[in-house]
Amino acid sequence: MAGLSDVAEGALRVVPLGGLGEIGRNMMVYETAEDMVVVDAGLLFPSDDMHGVDYIIPDASYVLERRDKLRGYLITHGHEDHIGALRFLLPQLQAPIYGSPLALGLIGWRLEESGILDAHMIEAGTGSSFDFGTITAEFYPVAHSIPDAFGIALRTPAGLVVHTGDFKIDHTPVMSEQTDLQQLAAYGREGVRLLCSDSTYADQPGVTPSEAVVGEALAQLLLTAPGRVIIATFASQIARIQQIVDAAEESGRVVYATGRSMEKNIEMSLELGYVAADERRLRPITDLGSAHDENTVIICTGAQGEPMSALSRMATGSHREVTLKSGDTVVLSSSPIPGNEAAVNNTMNNLYRRGVEVVSVASGHEHVHVRGHAAQEELKTVISLTNPSAFVPIHGEFRHLVLHGRLAQSMGVPDEGLHILLDGDVLELTANDSEVVDQIPAEYVYVDGENVGGVDRAIIRDRQKLADDGFILIAVAVNGESGAMTGDVEVTSRGFAEMHAAEHLRVGAAQVARDVLRSKPNATKLTTWEKRKRQVQQEVSTYVRRETRQRPMVVVVAVQV
Amino acid sequence: MAGLSDVAEGALRVVPLGGLGEIGRNMMVYETAEDMVVVDAGLLFPSDDMHGVDYIIPDASYVLERRDKLRGYLITHGHEDHIGALRFLLPQLQAPIYGSPLALGLIGWRLEESGILDAHMIEAGTGSSFDFGTITAEFYPVAHSIPDAFGIALRTPAGLVVHTGDFKIDHTPVMSEQTDLQQLAAYGREGVRLLCSDSTYADQPGVTPSEAVVGEALAQLLLTAPGRVIIATFASQIARIQQIVDAAEESGRVVYATGRSMEKNIEMSLELGYVAADERRLRPITDLGSAHDENTVIICTGAQGEPMSALSRMATGSHREVTLKSGDTVVLSSSPIPGNEAAVNNTMNNLYRRGVEVVSVASGHEHVHVRGHAAQEELKTVISLTNPSAFVPIHGEFRHLVLHGRLAQSMGVPDEGLHILLDGDVLELTANDSEVVDQIPAEYVYVDGENVGGVDRAIIRDRQKLADDGFILIAVAVNGESGAMTGDVEVTSRGFAEMHAAEHLRVGAAQVARDVLRSKPNATKLTTWEKRKRQVQQEVSTYVRRETRQRPMVVVVAVQV
Repeated sequence: MAGLSDVAEGALRVVPLGGLGEIGRNMMVYETAEDMVVVDAGLLFPSDDMHGVDYIIPDASYVLERRDKLRGYLITHGHEDHIGALRFLLPQLQAPIYGSPLALGLIGWRLEESGILDAHMIEAGTGSSFDFGTITAEFYPVAHSIPDAFGIALRTPAGLVVHTGDFKIDHTPVMSEQTDLQQLAAYGREGVRLLCSDSTYADQPGVTPSEAVVGEALAQLLLTAPGRVIIATFASQIARIQQIVDAAEESGRVVYATGRSMEKNIEMSLELGYVAADERRLRPITDLGSAHDENTVIICTGAQGEPMSALSRMATGSHREVTLKSGDTVVLSSSPIPGNEAAVNNTMNNLYRRGVEVVSVASGHEHVHVRGHAAQEELKTVISLTNPSAFVPIHGEFRHLVLHGRLAQSMGVPDEGLHILLDGDVLELTANDSEVVDQIPAEYVYVDGENVGGVDRAIIRDRQKLADDGFILIAVAVNGESGAMTGDVEVTSRGFAEMHAAEHLRVGAAQVARDVLRSKPNATKLTTWEKRKRQVQQEVSTYVRRETRQRPMVVVVAVQV
Repeated sequence: MAGLSDVAEGALRVVPLGGLGEIGRNMMVYETAEDMVVVDAGLLFPSDDMHGVDYIIPDASYVLERRDKLRGYLITHGHEDHIGALRFLLPQLQAPIYGSPLALGLIGWRLEESGILDAHMIEAGTGSSFDFGTITAEFYPVAHSIPDAFGIALRTPAGLVVHTGDFKIDHTPVMSEQTDLQQLAAYGREGVRLLCSDSTYADQPGVTPSEAVVGEALAQLLLTAPGRVIIATFASQIARIQQIVDAAEESGRVVYATGRSMEKNIEMSLELGYVAADERRLRPITDLGSAHDENTVIICTGAQGEPMSALSRMATGSHREVTLKSGDTVVLSSSPIPGNEAAVNNTMNNLYRRGVEVVSVASGHEHVHVRGHAAQEELKTVISLTNPSAFVPIHGEFRHLVLHGRLAQSMGVPDEGLHILLDGDVLELTANDSEVVDQIPAEYVYVDGENVGGVDRAIIRDRQKLADDGFILIAVAVNGESGAMTGDVEVTSRGFAEMHAAEHLRVGAAQVARDVLRSKPNATKLTTWEKRKRQVQQEVSTYVRRETRQRPMVVVVAVQV
């Protein structure tokens, strides 16, 4: 990387990459003079204004330029925002992947879909320790909304670093281990040089309730609901799937699963032993047939209002196997991710139109979902146990990082050790000092279908313009030898309402173009065609703006004859 | 209207129009055999997938076809979602406008901007009664988030109708009158045939706090904040503006206003006497100059994260007069309207980046904003006082209507009198009966700039396609006489990333087009050109989809030479 010197002996460089303002959730680089590890390699979903973009992945150029130092990917857990970029990065950035069996299972599935069959995957679990030369990594268990989640402690020349990953402190977790407070305390006694801790819910006071309360709430619903119960949740909420299966057993119901990722995750969870279920108790949706309503539970995807999901299709009456009806109870076992509120509301309205009962946190059933991240009192507990001399809040929008930073300050983390980083900030840490030494480019890399990085800001800008007002096309034929326009001007448009409606605009735009092209016949040599096209483009734009106050894109094309 | 008979003598027809799922918020038609009034004529803001659409207004064809019966527009209050369509409707649907001085002031301003100077406006106030032949309308005061808001009682041949408009029951309102419970009780004693009541927060238990608590909370903030206080709220929250001015007086601060609609609303409120302020106390932002921080309050637009608003500009450092800095306190005196959450979060992140303190309901300062609509216990009070024999929940998304309907049922409104209407449903009411007799078209009418109704679903669909993947353009020249292609095929693209990047795709697409056009030279007569173009379009689409898995729009144009 031009301008950025090598890491000094004894120092550790920390670089968060990617993240749509969610610093370091998708990728964190830890680098010494000799070695480098990457913690997580996830993707993000685009916001509404990133037209046609399917995913965003971190810009890994920094890692690519130092690929000879890369010793491995350390994966905290199997959520897409922590593993989803691997299939795009591995082809250029081969390195072993360390993670829990579940995380590796989910990674393997995605890699296989992408035709990557040669990944080197190494299982990690509680107490696993891996030696990467100047860095040693230890995995310690944390509770989160997916089983088999881990925090990672890194022993480095600059001291001990604790990277929490996503976590909450759940004293009665379901399936997963408790967040290992003993281990965090031991690190604290040893001396933590740097704590990088999850800030997702740093704006929430108090503590996050245990996953166990969800099991109780759902079990109660299954016992009392008069007809079918349809439960929408994240496919990766494997503990919740188990709780639903257990509750179904208790209430004599059978669970039917629908939604591609739900079916796939259940299949894998059964295979790997994460979910234990009698095959008569947990069945594919195609077996629903004429099952009795009061004996039926359906679990499905779509709790975020995703338009093509199983729940959305049920809500709009287009699901192949499930036709909702009065007497059904639909449970949204989730809360909307910021930005998804309108889609969730829309789904709820559609559900009410079908005459079903809708149960959600918003409708006062607060325990049908709990968050997967720590609230303020839990965050304080971790800071207290580890007592770090430097602190970097990670995994949150900027406001969460600031609020988490204030918590740390209030607990005695020294000001000079507190760093609110942006993606691309390069933090250098020694035993005694910590400082942001540079900022490297950390733009989003857009993925559109199979296309990684081809969609850039200019393309997005064009798409925005096309979305707002459509386009006008001016086509002309040009004599290849004389360079003179020959024949007439052809005008058409798409997505531009005014021209669609008004013939006079089409005629007017053609006349403007004709006037420009015929004005100086001597100048219409081929070499100046680019200039002429630009002139046509500008004058037609001006004409259309004056006539309609709209600004469609104007495209001019010349066919040589 | 084809197929729909005239209203029978003694009957009343009730038709909600427009609304983005918010039944009747924007327009309700009340029609007898002889006369018709329209309650409110508002606009809505589009959702993200309505590309390039600025507003949505109700489809008023039903009213237009009965324009000779239209006696007037009855306006409940001056919010855009109740008045904003008048400027688009009046040119075709002239009728007197009845409303409070503030509502008429706001209407007049908008009409003037649109060059409509001949509107006939008639002031209404508490106890105003207007005779429209078979319909008499009475205005009774309600508390809402804008002063001078009214409910409307209609005496009709079918009986007494109470239309609440937007309201809450605020026993200590600021500036506005209390919702007139005595009057509602009197209507109840007289006998209410139909209650149409505001459902916006029918999912909220309990009661909505009084606007008065906001004044106290803001006054406390102005007394204790160390530096400048910037308060973002709706420009129409005129009571809040007054409360801020009063609090500023108390704490020795001066109020500076910024944001176009904020400045305009303040100007009008001062003029009409709604806001009382010494001119040294309430000043334009251009006077900010070197005012002392601890003596400064700034009120501004942008509480919903609107990208071009005063607050957004401050948050991104592009506001002309206000540069935010550490020590400033920014108050979001509002809560996000569903769909705006991501924009508000974005603004908050930007504010934190400027080092300011951010105060909002979400940050635990629950009283810096209160809602403007009734919660469940208030809704029950209105049902109890009016004791209607028929009930139509209005102003809410479908789930709110259903929940409000259940409240009414629980209070004894008979099942046969409860009607959950969709926009366009035609409810007919007599003294003894009520029934949905038809559904008329009530599509959204899209407004794009000055263009009303020109943007339709097909245009939006084209824009969506262009936004997702851009387009490819295939241009050819055709001999006008022989109909044969002459010269070469020209290929270009916009917003389509793959072709932008890969020359081979452009070459390939040109070859596909050439092959089609040269395949059967005998068939290239002009009459068959449409067919040929469609064939080129299809084959190029197939080729591109195969090569890239993307589906850009493919446009083929032929220039005659």
